[in-house]
Amino acid sequence: MTEGPTITTIAQRAGVSIASVSRVLNGLPTREDTVRRVMRAADELGYVPNSVARSLRNRRTDQIAFAMADIGNPVYVAMVREIQPLLKEAGYRLLIHSTDGQAEDELGVLRGLRERYVDGLIISPLRGVTEEHVEAIVAARAPVVVIGSLPEDMPEGALVDNVRTDSRTGVRLALEHLHAIGRRRIGFLNGPLDTVPGAARAAAYREALEALGLPYDEDLVEVGDFYRDSGARAARALLSRVPGVDALMCANDLIALGALDVLREQGRDVPGDVAVVGMDDTDLASVTWPTLTSVSLGSAERGRAAAGLLLDRLQNGPREPRVAVVRPSLTIRGSTTLPGTSPGGAR
Amino acid sequence: MTEGPTITTIAQRAGVSIASVSRVLNGLPTREDTVRRVMRAADELGYVPNSVARSLRNRRTDQIAFAMADIGNPVYVAMVREIQPLLKEAGYRLLIHSTDGQAEDELGVLRGLRERYVDGLIISPLRGVTEEHVEAIVAARAPVVVIGSLPEDMPEGALVDNVRTDSRTGVRLALEHLHAIGRRRIGFLNGPLDTVPGAARAAAYREALEALGLPYDEDLVEVGDFYRDSGARAARALLSRVPGVDALMCANDLIALGALDVLREQGRDVPGDVAVVGMDDTDLASVTWPTLTSVSLGSAERGRAAAGLLLDRLQNGPREPRVAVVRPSLTIRGSTTLPGTSPGGAR
Repeated sequence: MTEGPTITTIAQRAGVSIASVSRVLNGLPTREDTVRRVMRAADELGYVPNSVARSLRNRRTDQIAFAMADIGNPVYVAMVREIQPLLKEAGYRLLIHSTDGQAEDELGVLRGLRERYVDGLIISPLRGVTEEHVEAIVAARAPVVVIGSLPEDMPEGALVDNVRTDSRTGVRLALEHLHAIGRRRIGFLNGPLDTVPGAARAAAYREALEALGLPYDEDLVEVGDFYRDSGARAARALLSRVPGVDALMCANDLIALGALDVLREQGRDVPGDVAVVGMDDTDLASVTWPTLTSVSLGSAERGRAAAGLLLDRLQNGPREPRVAVVRPSLTIRGSTTLPGTSPGGAR
Repeated sequence: MTEGPTITTIAQRAGVSIASVSRVLNGLPTREDTVRRVMRAADELGYVPNSVARSLRNRRTDQIAFAMADIGNPVYVAMVREIQPLLKEAGYRLLIHSTDGQAEDELGVLRGLRERYVDGLIISPLRGVTEEHVEAIVAARAPVVVIGSLPEDMPEGALVDNVRTDSRTGVRLALEHLHAIGRRRIGFLNGPLDTVPGAARAAAYREALEALGLPYDEDLVEVGDFYRDSGARAARALLSRVPGVDALMCANDLIALGALDVLREQGRDVPGDVAVVGMDDTDLASVTWPTLTSVSLGSAERGRAAAGLLLDRLQNGPREPRVAVVRPSLTIRGSTTLPGTSPGGAR
C-alpha cells in the first residue's frame, strides 16, 4: 500500500471516474481529454512517472495467452516456438489454450479477457468471425492479436491487431508450379468450408484454375477436416472418383500426409503419377518421403509479428489497430520434383 | 469480502499463526496437530467446508505451469496434448515454459514457485538433479511433478511427485529386436552424457549388449545432441568409422531422423543394409519413410499421470510423495522390418 496519491485521489482531482483513471493508467483507450485530465491531476498530485509506472506494474499480470486451434498441428507449435522466447525476453509468461477450432471455446477465451487474467491475447485462428466474436473482442480488457481473418470494419476502440497471410496467393503459387510441371487434372483436398481458412482456400483454388485457363471441376474437389486421417479419406474418395487425377493440392500438410499414405498404399508414384503439394510448410514436410512441396504461410513470421504487435501495444499504450501481412512462398521438395527435371521445368 | 470467520479469527481461536492456517487451508504440509487444531477452530467458528473451499479458492491462481526442455520436440507436444484438456476440465489454465534443457532456466522456473504464480508445476525433464534443483523444489510454495529422474531421497516435506519411465528396459527391448532380426553390429547414437536421459541410455545400451552376449565397442558409439542435425552428424561420423554397422539405435526420434537422412544420402537401404530404431515413438515415426521403429516411453501416459498426481495433491491436500512408472514398449515399423519377414523373425 503506497503512501501519497492514489487512483481515488487522482479520480477526485480529475473529476473523472476511478474506472477512467484505471483505464488511463492501464493504457486502455480513453477519450483524449480524459487522458489529459488524468495525467494533469496525477502530475499535480506528484504522482510522478515512476510511481505511475509502479501502479501500472501492480495491475500487470505479466502473462500473455496464446489460443490455438489444435496443439497437434505443427503450425501452432512453430508459432509458439517464436512467440515464447520473445515474450520471455519482455518479461511475460506464456499461457496456452487449445480451442479445438470450436467457436464456443474461442468465445470462452475472448470473454475470459474481461477478468484480465492476462495482459494480452494472441489467438489463431477464429473459426469464423461472428458478431459474438467481435463483441467479445470489443469488451476485452486486454489487447488481442488475431492471426487469421478479421473484419475490416472492427468497431472503434477495439484493442485488436491482425496478422494475416495471403493464402490465395499461396494456392496460386502452388497451382502455377503444378501447371509448370505439366499437371492439368489438379485435385483439391480442402478443410471445412465453414472455417475462414477453408472458405478462403476454396475460393483461391477456383481463382487460380481460372487464371491458368483450367476448367473448374467439382469432381476434383473433396472437403474434409484439417487432419491426416480425414485427408486420407478425402484422397481415397477423390482418387476413386477421378482415377486420372495427376496432382493433389492439399489445404494443409496434415491432409497431404493422409494423401501420401493413400497414394503409397495404392502403389501410385509420387510425383510420377500424382504430384502432391501441402500447405503450411511444417516440420513434417521435410520428414515425409518423398519430401513434401508445401506452401509456406510463414507460421514463424506470423508468430513473431503477432508477439511484436502485442508487445508494442503493451509497451507504448493505445494506438490505432494495425494489420501485418506475411507473404506466402512455395517450398519445392520431392513430391513435385521428378528426378532429372528442374523444379520449374516442364514434365 | 465474506462475513463471518476469517483466517485471522481461526488463527486466534486455534492459537496458531495466520501462516499456519493459510498453509492448512492451502493444503500445504503442516504438523499433524496444527492441522487438527486449525480444522477444529474452523469448525467451531462455523467455517463450514464450502466457505473453507471458497477461502481456499480465493487464494488459488487456477493456473498450472508445464516446463519442457524443447517445444520443438514432439515428445513434449504429446505431453501437453494430454495435460491441457485434463487441467482445463479441472478448471486450471496451462502456462508453458521452454527451458531449452538449460539447468539455469529450470532453476528459474522452480525458484519462481516461491511467488506462487501458479498452483502447481509439471517439469520435464531436469537436465541434472543438482543440490540447487532439490533446494528449489523444497522451497517451492506449490506442488511439483517431475517427469524424469529425481533422487530417491528427497527431503521431508518436499511437495514433489515423480513420473518416470524405464528407458533401460526400452533400450533393451530395441536391442533384443535388432538382435532377433540378425543384427550384430549395432551402433548407438546418443544425446549428451551430462543429461539424465543421455546417461541412462548409455548405461542401458551397454547392459543390453552384455545381456545379448554382444561385445561393447566404443567405436560403435557416437554422442551428440538430441536434435535432427546433430543426429545426422553423429550418423555420418559413425558410418565412416565403422562402415559395416548393420543397425543404429538412436536415443530419440529426432536423432533417428538425422540418421535416416544420412543413410538415404549414402544410398544405404533401410532396413536392408542398416536397421534404425528411434526412441519416444513420436508422431514423426509414422511420417518418415520407411516408417520408424521406435521405443515408446509413453509420453501421453506420462503426461496424463503427471496431471493426475498434481490434481490429486491440489484437490486432496498433503500426502507422501508418489512415483508413477510408465512401462516402455517397442512399436515395430518399416525401419526394422524387411519385406517378407515377420518383425520378430530371423533375417
